[in-house]
Amino acid sequence: MSKVKKVAENTNFTAVNIGSLNKLTEHTLAGPSGVVMEGKVFLKDITHSTGTEISYNVLPPQTAIPYFHTHKKNEETYLILSGSGLFQVDDKCFDITEGSVIRIAPNGKRGMTNTSNEPMIYIAIQSKENSLEEYSMGDGKMAADVKPMW
Amino acid sequence: MSKVKKVAENTNFTAVNIGSLNKLTEHTLAGPSGVVMEGKVFLKDITHSTGTEISYNVLPPQTAIPYFHTHKKNEETYLILSGSGLFQVDDKCFDITEGSVIRIAPNGKRGMTNTSNEPMIYIAIQSKENSLEEYSMGDGKMAADVKPMW
Repeated sequence: MSKVKKVAENTNFTAVNIGSLNKLTEHTLAGPSGVVMEGKVFLKDITHSTGTEISYNVLPPQTAIPYFHTHKKNEETYLILSGSGLFQVDDKCFDITEGSVIRIAPNGKRGMTNTSNEPMIYIAIQSKENSLEEYSMGDGKMAADVKPMW
Repeated sequence: MSKVKKVAENTNFTAVNIGSLNKLTEHTLAGPSGVVMEGKVFLKDITHSTGTEISYNVLPPQTAIPYFHTHKKNEETYLILSGSGLFQVDDKCFDITEGSVIRIAPNGKRGMTNTSNEPMIYIAIQSKENSLEEYSMGDGKMAADVKPMW
C-alpha cells in the first residue's frame, strides 16, 4: 500500500512526500509472484521522472538482500543513510555505513547485508549508463526574473 | 577541500564514503569566480558515474538558496532528508520537510528556503530528461552464481 502524499504539481514538476524515513517499513509493494515487499518506495511513477528510477529502501537489522543481481542497461548508485554492513560487487566485498556511495555498472553482480542492529536505510538510483551529457553547473542557467514567494 | 574517502573499486564499480551527514558543511568546493561553497559534495567525478550527477547538500538554518535556476537538458530530483521550509517552482510554492521528493523538468524555475532551525540536508539528482528506458525490476537480472563473501 502506498502511503505517499501528492503535494503539488504543474507541467514542470511533481512534488510528493513519502513520510518519515524511520517509517519506511510501512510502505509495501507487490513484487513478482505476488510476494509483498516491505520498506520499498519506487519514485518514478509517482513523480513522473523520465531520467531515473529512484527508490527509498530499508533493510532490517542483521539481514541480507536475499539475491545478487545485475542490470541490462542501467547504472545504479546506492546511497547509505543509516546502518552498517557489507556490500559486495563481483568478488570484492567492503564495509558500508552512513555516507557510503557505491556506483555500479550494469554488469556488476551486487549484493549487500546489514550486519548492524539498526535498520539500514538506503537510496538506490537507476539511470541509463552513459546517458548524461552536460552536468552540474554546466547544465544550469540562472533564472534572475523569479520573485521568491517567501 | 574534499573529505571523500575511496573505499574500493574494480572495472564494474567505485565505492567511496563522504562521512557523516551531519558533517556535510566540512565539505567545500570552488564555485564560479573563486567563490568557495560550503556543504556540497558532487559525486559524478569521484564515483565515475555516467548517467547521473548526484550531490549531497546542506542549507543552513533560516537560509534560502540565493538564486533560482533552470537546466538545459537535465531533469532534477530533490530528496529532503532533514529541516523544513518552502520550495518554489515557477509560481507554485509549497512546504517541504523530511520525506519530500520534488522532480522538476529542465524548464522549471526552482528555488528553496530552509525556514527551520536545523540544517536542511538534501540530495539533488541530475539526469538527462527522457533518457531512461527500462527500469526497476524490468531492467534487473538475477545473478544466482554469486557466493556471498559474508
